[in-house]
Amino acid sequence: MTITLQPIGFVRSSRTTLTDDQWGEVTARIEIVDMLPQESLDGIEAFSHAEIVFQFNQVDEANIVSGARHPRGNTRWPKVGIFAQRGKDRPNRLGLTIVRIARRGERTLDVVGLDAVDGTPVLDVKPVMAEFLPREPVRQPEWSHELMQRYWV
Amino acid sequence: MTITLQPIGFVRSSRTTLTDDQWGEVTARIEIVDMLPQESLDGIEAFSHAEIVFQFNQVDEANIVSGARHPRGNTRWPKVGIFAQRGKDRPNRLGLTIVRIARRGERTLDVVGLDAVDGTPVLDVKPVMAEFLPREPVRQPEWSHELMQRYWV
Repeated sequence: MTITLQPIGFVRSSRTTLTDDQWGEVTARIEIVDMLPQESLDGIEAFSHAEIVFQFNQVDEANIVSGARHPRGNTRWPKVGIFAQRGKDRPNRLGLTIVRIARRGERTLDVVGLDAVDGTPVLDVKPVMAEFLPREPVRQPEWSHELMQRYWV
Repeated sequence: MTITLQPIGFVRSSRTTLTDDQWGEVTARIEIVDMLPQESLDGIEAFSHAEIVFQFNQVDEANIVSGARHPRGNTRWPKVGIFAQRGKDRPNRLGLTIVRIARRGERTLDVVGLDAVDGTPVLDVKPVMAEFLPREPVRQPEWSHELMQRYWV
């Protein structure tokens, strides 16, 4: 079974290289593809945040990890499954990030904190509703806090 | 440009019909496909929550909305773009939900609060890290609070 998707837009950003850290200040633009009407974005400015689903299409498929590995290859951290980490070298190479909405143009959405490089295909945009955030306290291992320490700096 | 993905697993659930509300108590099982090693889930039990990316493959492609509509057809709510709502009748038909992790089996993950029916293809599982949640207060329109009122009941 295969699932065929089409980009609903593309990322325009000054960031062109996939790097591990310091994505917090990045402003990127999502341009909606010509096939979709501009009305698809109507009303999004009433939300402060959106979730962006994209594909890390720059990742070589040969590098995809389907089992376990040390996150970022750091052996001080435990070896964990690819679905217990958010790294890009994953089956289907999907990225998923909550961004702050800065400005909606006619066919564009400017966002802050998108960890995707210029040219990245976007597969979906969803508004963040508080009701879809965790409804219980979030628990996570210590290594993940360490890994995230400089991510948004 | 098309993007071809393969399910990394499938949903097993007692819910078989896509309904609008009352998903909070649903326990579902995600079964990882045979092609992936069971190690792909290692360490996920250290997290309380995971984000599940799936496809609403029961939605007829003829029903996909690419412009604006009243959410759930409710004319008391404003007409907004499909990317300003989280409805299932959307381009690429992707669903995206944060669930509570209940139990990891060898090749299975039992989760609470997954709004996907039995047989749904799963495209990715990512652990929820607090650092990936909104870093500013969330603002959203009043209609979205009303819409969510009975979603998790």
